Amino acid sequence: MQDSPLWSLFSDLRFGRPRTQGGRTCFVAEGRILVEDLLAWGRAGRVEVAAVVAEAGHADAVQPLLPAGAELLTATRAELEALAGFPFHRGLMAAARVPEPPPLADLPRARRLLVLPALSDAENLGQLLRTAAALGLDGALLGPGPDPFSRRAIRVSMGAAWKLPLWRAEDPWAALEAWRAPGGEVVAAALAGSIPVTAWVPAARTALVLGPEGPGLAPGEVARCGRAVRIPMAEGVDSLNVAAAGAILMHRMMAP
Amino acid sequence: MQDSPLWSLFSDLRFGRPRTQGGRTCFVAEGRILVEDLLAWGRAGRVEVAAVVAEAGHADAVQPLLPAGAELLTATRAELEALAGFPFHRGLMAAARVPEPPPLADLPRARRLLVLPALSDAENLGQLLRTAAALGLDGALLGPGPDPFSRRAIRVSMGAAWKLPLWRAEDPWAALEAWRAPGGEVVAAALAGSIPVTAWVPAARTALVLGPEGPGLAPGEVARCGRAVRIPMAEGVDSLNVAAAGAILMHRMMAP
Repeated sequence: MQDSPLWSLFSDLRFGRPRTQGGRTCFVAEGRILVEDLLAWGRAGRVEVAAVVAEAGHADAVQPLLPAGAELLTATRAELEALAGFPFHRGLMAAARVPEPPPLADLPRARRLLVLPALSDAENLGQLLRTAAALGLDGALLGPGPDPFSRRAIRVSMGAAWKLPLWRAEDPWAALEAWRAPGGEVVAAALAGSIPVTAWVPAARTALVLGPEGPGLAPGEVARCGRAVRIPMAEGVDSLNVAAAGAILMHRMMAP
Repeated sequence: MQDSPLWSLFSDLRFGRPRTQGGRTCFVAEGRILVEDLLAWGRAGRVEVAAVVAEAGHADAVQPLLPAGAELLTATRAELEALAGFPFHRGLMAAARVPEPPPLADLPRARRLLVLPALSDAENLGQLLRTAAALGLDGALLGPGPDPFSRRAIRVSMGAAWKLPLWRAEDPWAALEAWRAPGGEVVAAALAGSIPVTAWVPAARTALVLGPEGPGLAPGEVARCGRAVRIPMAEGVDSLNVAAAGAILMHRMMAP
């Protein structure tokens, strides 16, 4: 276990404390698949990888994958478990700098946008971002809510957090007004006052707004959108999970 | 905390051990929303509730909701936490008997069926069952895999485990052959040799087969289905989560 200040990026991983390096916030990706993906994005200059942690004996395999500027740290498995604070059997970890969100002035370049003004759960967020990236949306606009670079969101999003442009706004509704100006349509997922999804013909520029699991969007929020769509449901069943509803609606948006 | 052998149904909830009462396996539902839903199904005679646990002081509110035969247990919050083994802040718990799966001979009555021959993750299972119930499928056929009545699956499925008919088969492919006979179409979710989902016109009797997260269905399994559909994905993105893909495909199956 060599001497490096970068080790602290990986300590007590179960605690969601801020991790910084050179004054910048970092996030941690765990597991071979996610880390190899992150390193490829690092080599392409799309994300800034600070450090990669590998079990001693695996360093030779990782070395050729390192982006410029990334430090390779190795230790025994026992040392890694003591550091991370849990059984370390996922082989690889990497820490990278949380990318600066794109400027809100660039939001209009997104033609198909997912908008999450106030999501409440990091796993739902990670799943929605993974689906948005897989279906080819141009990005997501996030209001206050869970951190897309938190451990739980990263694990679920399968890299979408660093692949998908993520605009951030304290007031996503104001940002949405600016986005709408060039002829975009803002569509709320809501049960009341909505058309069924199969009747929805999405505009070429569409922003899909999803509320938090449980309460969903408030009526006043739905009113701020141009229209609303719903997924008809069986009687006696409360609701779809927001990630499942989002998948169905995003698919309709991308492939009507 | 009254004396009752039923308390043991709720001990050490984080451990996935079998819980039995009168020789029959039980499952536990936690939280007000899920428990009230379970009690309503109990009162309708659709599920057999053995016991409900409420914090002392909340018993009067729960009493009128009890199905016949269900025992109400009360204790202080401290006693409940000592029993369950974790901070008890969800207000209510209930234990009910795991329903007998419907006989495989009844499988042909399902016109729209979700088939999960070998899923690997309890949360994906719970999410898929919740979506299937919400979209109005007639049931699911499960092969070996996670238990739909496990704690994690129950929490995610929002009651779908007791609402949706769940056929169980050691060899779901053989059961599917029997189901197919009366003119059903078996459709695999797969990337290779498949048509895009927007080109898929589902038959009136359709069974949708999803493989496990990660590997998906094996080529030999896809070949056993009549056709295969895929959800076209953006370049450079590995895949949709199986629960998101399932939501999109089930929605297409129910509302083409």
